[in-house]
Amino acid sequence: MKMTLAEIAVFLGGTVVGADNTVIENIRSIEEANEGDITFIANKKYLKKLKLTKASAVLVPPQTAADGRNLIVVADPYVALGKLLTLFYPLEHGGNGVSPDAYIEEGAVVSPEAVVFPRVFIGKGATIGKGSVVYPGVFVGRNVSIGENSILYANVTVYHSCIIGNGVILHSGVVIGADGFGFASPGKSNIKIPQIGFVQIDDDVEIGANTTVDRATLGKTWIQRNVKIDNLVQIAHNVVIGENSVITAQVGISGSTKLGKSVMVGGQSGMVGHIDIGDNVMIAADSKIHKNIKAGEIVGGKPHMPYKEFLQVEACQAKLPEMRATIKDLVKKVDELLKK
Amino acid sequence: MKMTLAEIAVFLGGTVVGADNTVIENIRSIEEANEGDITFIANKKYLKKLKLTKASAVLVPPQTAADGRNLIVVADPYVALGKLLTLFYPLEHGGNGVSPDAYIEEGAVVSPEAVVFPRVFIGKGATIGKGSVVYPGVFVGRNVSIGENSILYANVTVYHSCIIGNGVILHSGVVIGADGFGFASPGKSNIKIPQIGFVQIDDDVEIGANTTVDRATLGKTWIQRNVKIDNLVQIAHNVVIGENSVITAQVGISGSTKLGKSVMVGGQSGMVGHIDIGDNVMIAADSKIHKNIKAGEIVGGKPHMPYKEFLQVEACQAKLPEMRATIKDLVKKVDELLKK
Amino acid sequence: MKMTLAEIAVFLGGTVVGADNTVIENIRSIEEANEGDITFIANKKYLKKLKLTKASAVLVPPQTAADGRNLIVVADPYVALGKLLTLFYPLEHGGNGVSPDAYIEEGAVVSPEAVVFPRVFIGKGATIGKGSVVYPGVFVGRNVSIGENSILYANVTVYHSCIIGNGVILHSGVVIGADGFGFASPGKSNIKIPQIGFVQIDDDVEIGANTTVDRATLGKTWIQRNVKIDNLVQIAHNVVIGENSVITAQVGISGSTKLGKSVMVGGQSGMVGHIDIGDNVMIAADSKIHKNIKAGEIVGGKPHMPYKEFLQVEACQAKLPEMRATIKDLVKKVDELLKK
Repeated sequence: MKMTLAEIAVFLGGTVVGADNTVIENIRSIEEANEGDITFIANKKYLKKLKLTKASAVLVPPQTAADGRNLIVVADPYVALGKLLTLFYPLEHGGNGVSPDAYIEEGAVVSPEAVVFPRVFIGKGATIGKGSVVYPGVFVGRNVSIGENSILYANVTVYHSCIIGNGVILHSGVVIGADGFGFASPGKSNIKIPQIGFVQIDDDVEIGANTTVDRATLGKTWIQRNVKIDNLVQIAHNVVIGENSVITAQVGISGSTKLGKSVMVGGQSGMVGHIDIGDNVMIAADSKIHKNIKAGEIVGGKPHMPYKEFLQVEACQAKLPEMRATIKDLVKKVDELLKK
Repeated sequence: MKMTLAEIAVFLGGTVVGADNTVIENIRSIEEANEGDITFIANKKYLKKLKLTKASAVLVPPQTAADGRNLIVVADPYVALGKLLTLFYPLEHGGNGVSPDAYIEEGAVVSPEAVVFPRVFIGKGATIGKGSVVYPGVFVGRNVSIGENSILYANVTVYHSCIIGNGVILHSGVVIGADGFGFASPGKSNIKIPQIGFVQIDDDVEIGANTTVDRATLGKTWIQRNVKIDNLVQIAHNVVIGENSVITAQVGISGSTKLGKSVMVGGQSGMVGHIDIGDNVMIAADSKIHKNIKAGEIVGGKPHMPYKEFLQVEACQAKLPEMRATIKDLVKKVDELLKK
Repeated sequence: MKMTLAEIAVFLGGTVVGADNTVIENIRSIEEANEGDITFIANKKYLKKLKLTKASAVLVPPQTAADGRNLIVVADPYVALGKLLTLFYPLEHGGNGVSPDAYIEEGAVVSPEAVVFPRVFIGKGATIGKGSVVYPGVFVGRNVSIGENSILYANVTVYHSCIIGNGVILHSGVVIGADGFGFASPGKSNIKIPQIGFVQIDDDVEIGANTTVDRATLGKTWIQRNVKIDNLVQIAHNVVIGENSVITAQVGISGSTKLGKSVMVGGQSGMVGHIDIGDNVMIAADSKIHKNIKAGEIVGGKPHMPYKEFLQVEACQAKLPEMRATIKDLVKKVDELLKK
């Protein structure tokens, strides 16, 4: 694709600084960009790289000094980057309608406007909406509902009776609806509690590779609209994640815990079961959450505490050997003073 | 299904309090239950919900005040729930014998009483016992043995020569028998040590989605009878897990470590290799185990310590900034005292 | 296979102590070995087991007392074990050329000297080199390049345009090239940034079961020559891992972080994004890395610190309740002294 800076600025709602007839053919990172490329600076701390790039133009935030460069000034360069990438490099899945080499059980309803690759299995009673793409190796269980314009990448598994909305992206290896981990008399007879609930995934959710979302014991495990979940995350039975929340890689959320809207969870964090996390809570990476958190709080640590306290505690931990030595010294001095 | 409370009480070995001709059609959680539903209270701390539920009846532990409700009193409501769920909602896999669309190599022996879905691959020399169910996308390597009444959900992989017992459940994405992580001269030449052992999984084991159990270097990795393992757990080569043990999500167990019987391991914990964990040990979530633990101990922390000590240490950690300030203050005062 | 100790010693470049005409038929661990077996002692702390083994011979390091045993003395018994295992138990994949039951899109180029099992999908423009083995359930996306003598075990997924070198081993459930986790306005509108880069995996890399390596936003995520990665590891977009590095299970590496050569990372560790880890760095298990680390450093802890300091800090943590009590006692005594 070829576009001038003037055309790109119109598309992005930005302003050109420099030669607006410059032609752009590709988008590359600031280190790798060359002539004909546009690049971006999303974070002001990388502004010093502006001088060194060989790019023909740079997407920048307002009030950036041009320094002889061609710029497109936009409110949010990262958002603009996303738009431009979508324009320059539209996602192509290949595939061609519903492959005769997919195995579709009788009684499944697959839109003729869906793309279903070979080697897919779709169970009885399942539905696949128009515009959805189902890659090879995907298993869609009985009575699963998949909306429109969703993408299930290769080797995704969706157990029976789960509900997937519109515009959902499930990356490879994702498992939706496996049994929740429920046993009576744990450690003794380990009597399995059947998990008869389901998983509901609302519109515009994206779930990363090899993440697992277990079906509910009763009722549903529920991932609400526009939630984004990274790779290798564990979501247990009956968890609810509120809309727009963002869960980073390798997080584990135990059974029946509820997250509000716009909750941000850092990587490798863990949460016990049966707690409530309020709207807009932010949880630092590697935190261990053991009880409810009120809306808007920022927390970190194990067990979690307000983030500012957590930073102080962390700072102190490195000083522990020094503190211990000082205490020892104090004990000695005080003993001497007491002897006087 | 419809049953009266009287019939349910006979089935569960419980006692009705209230109208024993009440008809039950469904089982739902205490919040979602309505007329015609039975629900349960497994934990006494939820007894206050008894007043609010709209359920027609509630499974409760002994000595629960009826408060005008229909109750079925049972020794363990959670166990009773499990039995009742199994009765009301029997697991149905669909499928119909051995699909002609499964790829079964010559020399594999599949019981005609097994269910093998399309898109399964079964290698030469493998055996599948009667009553077992093998979902689409499962790979059964050469010379694998799978017993009776086991379930391999979609996209499970079992590498060659592994042994799976009877009544085993492997959830989607489970990988049994991949190579253990063994390299000579690590970080330098990284010479691969072939992993020629296997994995043995005994009867009634259940393994959660995307969990990995590596084959042994020599001999076997061994998951014993009735062990329950959650999602995304890593079991390294030559690990042994004793019967009835319960391993929660995202735990990692390093090579050659042995767990005794009825060991309970909290989520996200880790264990170094070549250690022994005794029978009935309980390990708190997010613990890091660095050496042997004697039978019956309860531990937590990093590195682990007795659980009671761990709670004290955790409590102190939050007080670190205060402790540090106090030390600073003491140093000043003692210095002044010494000057006198 | 049968070999005399004399023949084995020649093969390994070692020296026999004892009866060099002893015939060896199998290799077993020191506990399980019997007559006809050779075993090994890789770590001097297990030398005491030498007396108890029933093995017919033992691979040992130099200066090991024979104690009446047949020994083969080699410079590195673990390396020797690897060589001997490869000789005695050559890896056999079965399979037979390119299966007509594989689904290969037009325009893919598969070497007739590769082994492609049934139920594989290979997209348009992909290439598979000679000697490579592709197991059932593998998805090879469009324009993927796979070199020679690589092994993709069952149910591996490689998204479009990724590059896999020669002699690479990808274990089951590995996902290469899923979208990196990039969203503008996170927690609010969560606008997806298209991930248009790719993953490059160089020669002789091995990646463990269910590990995920995300494609780059722009440019490439790059796993360099001879890197070994264990199971359930998360490698984010634009990460670079330098040659010969070893990454243990359940580690998470955030976006754009660069590891040098021969870096060793202990299990369950985590790294923030956009940092540089120097050559030969060693990171203890469960460390949390928050900033750059210089070449050759050994670190541990959360946040990380030099390993020796970390050990001291850990030791102090267990003493925290005692320290707190001592501080309390000191405060009391000093207050009394000040009153005098």
